[in-house]
Amino acid sequence: MATDGVLTPQGSDFPRWYQEVVAKAELADNGPVRGTMVIRPYGYAIWERMQAEVDRRIKATGAENAYFPLFIPESYLQREAEHVEGFSPELAVVTYGGGKKLEEPVVVRPTSETIVNSYFSKWVQSHRDLPMLVNQWANVVRWELRPRLFLRTTEFLWQEGHTVHATEAEARDFALEILGEVYARFMADVMAVPVLTGRKTARERFAGATTTWTCEAMMGDGKALQMGTSHELGQNFARVFDITFLDEHGAQVHAWQTSWGVSTRLMGALVMTHGDDAGLRLPPALAPIQAVVLVVRAEEGTVAAAEELVRDLEDAGVRARLDARTDTSFGRRVVDWELKGVPVRVELGPRDLAKGEAVLARRVGARKEGARPEGAQKETVSLGDVAARVRTALDDAQEVLAAEARRRRQDATTEVSTLADAVDAAQGGFAVLPLAVLGEDGESRLNEAGVSVRCIQRADGTLPDEADDPAGLVAVVARAY
Amino acid sequence: MATDGVLTPQGSDFPRWYQEVVAKAELADNGPVRGTMVIRPYGYAIWERMQAEVDRRIKATGAENAYFPLFIPESYLQREAEHVEGFSPELAVVTYGGGKKLEEPVVVRPTSETIVNSYFSKWVQSHRDLPMLVNQWANVVRWELRPRLFLRTTEFLWQEGHTVHATEAEARDFALEILGEVYARFMADVMAVPVLTGRKTARERFAGATTTWTCEAMMGDGKALQMGTSHELGQNFARVFDITFLDEHGAQVHAWQTSWGVSTRLMGALVMTHGDDAGLRLPPALAPIQAVVLVVRAEEGTVAAAEELVRDLEDAGVRARLDARTDTSFGRRVVDWELKGVPVRVELGPRDLAKGEAVLARRVGARKEGARPEGAQKETVSLGDVAARVRTALDDAQEVLAAEARRRRQDATTEVSTLADAVDAAQGGFAVLPLAVLGEDGESRLNEAGVSVRCIQRADGTLPDEADDPAGLVAVVARAY
Repeated sequence: MATDGVLTPQGSDFPRWYQEVVAKAELADNGPVRGTMVIRPYGYAIWERMQAEVDRRIKATGAENAYFPLFIPESYLQREAEHVEGFSPELAVVTYGGGKKLEEPVVVRPTSETIVNSYFSKWVQSHRDLPMLVNQWANVVRWELRPRLFLRTTEFLWQEGHTVHATEAEARDFALEILGEVYARFMADVMAVPVLTGRKTARERFAGATTTWTCEAMMGDGKALQMGTSHELGQNFARVFDITFLDEHGAQVHAWQTSWGVSTRLMGALVMTHGDDAGLRLPPALAPIQAVVLVVRAEEGTVAAAEELVRDLEDAGVRARLDARTDTSFGRRVVDWELKGVPVRVELGPRDLAKGEAVLARRVGARKEGARPEGAQKETVSLGDVAARVRTALDDAQEVLAAEARRRRQDATTEVSTLADAVDAAQGGFAVLPLAVLGEDGESRLNEAGVSVRCIQRADGTLPDEADDPAGLVAVVARAY
Repeated sequence: MATDGVLTPQGSDFPRWYQEVVAKAELADNGPVRGTMVIRPYGYAIWERMQAEVDRRIKATGAENAYFPLFIPESYLQREAEHVEGFSPELAVVTYGGGKKLEEPVVVRPTSETIVNSYFSKWVQSHRDLPMLVNQWANVVRWELRPRLFLRTTEFLWQEGHTVHATEAEARDFALEILGEVYARFMADVMAVPVLTGRKTARERFAGATTTWTCEAMMGDGKALQMGTSHELGQNFARVFDITFLDEHGAQVHAWQTSWGVSTRLMGALVMTHGDDAGLRLPPALAPIQAVVLVVRAEEGTVAAAEELVRDLEDAGVRARLDARTDTSFGRRVVDWELKGVPVRVELGPRDLAKGEAVLARRVGARKEGARPEGAQKETVSLGDVAARVRTALDDAQEVLAAEARRRRQDATTEVSTLADAVDAAQGGFAVLPLAVLGEDGESRLNEAGVSVRCIQRADGTLPDEADDPAGLVAVVARAY
């Protein structure tokens, strides 16, 4: 492959490979304050597409965007006991403002339940105000001692939804609509990342929630990544922030709530799910550049012909880019576009042009599901057919990436029946363990062995319910990011 | 008018009117930490449209979005002398993180020149990397002692562009492209807010810039609001952050830079430019709801017919909303939609429906330019014509709002020839004073009298140039927000 030596191979050191791809594909840099991150234009363009797709799906549920302050009085966080306990160790605290020491220190939001709910308390009066469905896109800060770009950063970007409902059942339904119809579908259809959905154990639950639902994906090294969570908050915050409403019978009752979020961590998931030893492989739905037209040598009208190809592609609805930087070697440019994961390259040299042809190279091959990646596949296409062939290649690429990720998870998922086997199997993927085997202290023993319960599901992979017989439930166990 | 008494009239107390509109139209609330702000869903929906329009225009210049950290080491700010002097009094400082006192305190970004330029220094190597055009949408913090929602808040949302160029002329051209083609055009065409563009005096210049260009608009009370600025930074930051590049002749030279921004302050401009005693009046290009269909009474099929009207409107590309809350009085709902500034109401009662008609009420009348606002105009329209008539009404409204704002500025702008007359004229609008009259200490004398130089222009209103004879320049003087 053209990229031998550009990156540490995944197989020899996956974390190092990750770090190198993020840097060399120009996705992100470390910030000067430990744990902070600069998202570079190429990385941010991918994030913007994720945002647009998630935002559209959130709005389709009826939720509206709003914006709450970055600064929260310290006293707000202290109102919900579990919440403050969960977040205190990670807080950044502002003690000086406008040249003076502040009377009450303010925390930089680690999440916004406390401040949002203090407003819901004012805005919610009657059952007619419900459901109240609010989302915000914002930065949050959780001081991070072992930072990794996108995966764990002191500051990250996310959306956080906060809702108020009249009944527990409505709150649960909404939390699950977000989990399934918004998050899991976006991840599968747009990111081409299949996810398991399930319930978190009490230990892994969000601080202040009664139930946390999660989307869990398997990365290229077999480890799990929590991709997004949707929490039922019960009446915990409604009680401490006094969110009550007049119900249809004239009674003043506490509301039921949810909160839910996905973050720039999704960028890490994208890299670690689809990347290979040549670099990123972007699903076309998220690729800022879906096809790049490379001029091999700027001779005999190749540049003009390449420009025309770019226009053809744009007319066909393809996000196309011209690369006529012929003062850089062709090989180096190919390596660079492979690193950046552009799904399709169209290569045009003087000899191709003379024959009325171009070479189409796919970053993701049109392979059968499960075949091993073998680098880009090439084919010769007549110039008039380029746009149509690229469209087909893009459709293929989106499908193939999803199929490869599904297959990898399938191949690396093992049903086990003991804790020891779960720990073993989790070294290379997911272990599915009967919940009954986990017992009272099983989770602690797994954690001591460096693995964790990612989620609880029914044995058929569907979501559990309080009414379920625990004997029919399983725990998905894995190493995790 | 239906809204008598809902709001303090503009004429009796404009600041109070502003505060009431922002609250009653549900645009924003004060945050718990002094000077912070909650942007409510209705306000945020307007801001999202502004963002989308500005973002599209910024991208059309070739700039790309990115994201830089919220936290900046204190030492970074201190590198550029004027910059740190300008921003130090407004900084919020984080001294604790992750439960520990930090070795070096970090400031919450008041603006991002220092951190962005520390990365440009790494990313810019050769003239081939230029121009480098980066923008970010972010929150920034400047501790505010006299906060007012949207106009002056401790935290606000904005975009900040940062660019690097090979020559001073290219940097200036780009700063002016942003000022004129992005900002002033967006303000005029989308916000329906006409702006003067000009150069700031040295006193009003951005801390660290060599030249600040500004967009200034006249609010409903005759005061000026700075709507957006575009700065030429010269080589000031390039020198302290060592941003150099290899030019075409092989020499290592310092780059030339710009920065520019508009913020949620634009929301305040929108309110104060178009609002009247009944509330907001939104330009259709920014209105989250362009037409609301009100069911007068839920009888004899009015709800079904209103739903059909909403579908007709949506099919015609109108952002329409049904209001069938007939358990709230019709009058109160009308007042509410007027407060929220929805450009067109379509009212449908049983008698209208029986005649196959609806009543169309315009929030902004189809008046002749300069006529006094007299509240909504109504007309009866047959149901089949509603969508087409609403479209026409929306086109009219966008034009009429812009024309009214232009006319008001024209009427309240006075050419003067002495400082005393400038102070007088600025009590009710803009005073245009020959620059020569301003002299050495004129600006101080104006400031002492509570007015300021908003910008320097040529006498014909165009942008000045270094080569200009100062005798041909004027200072626009006004009270300002």
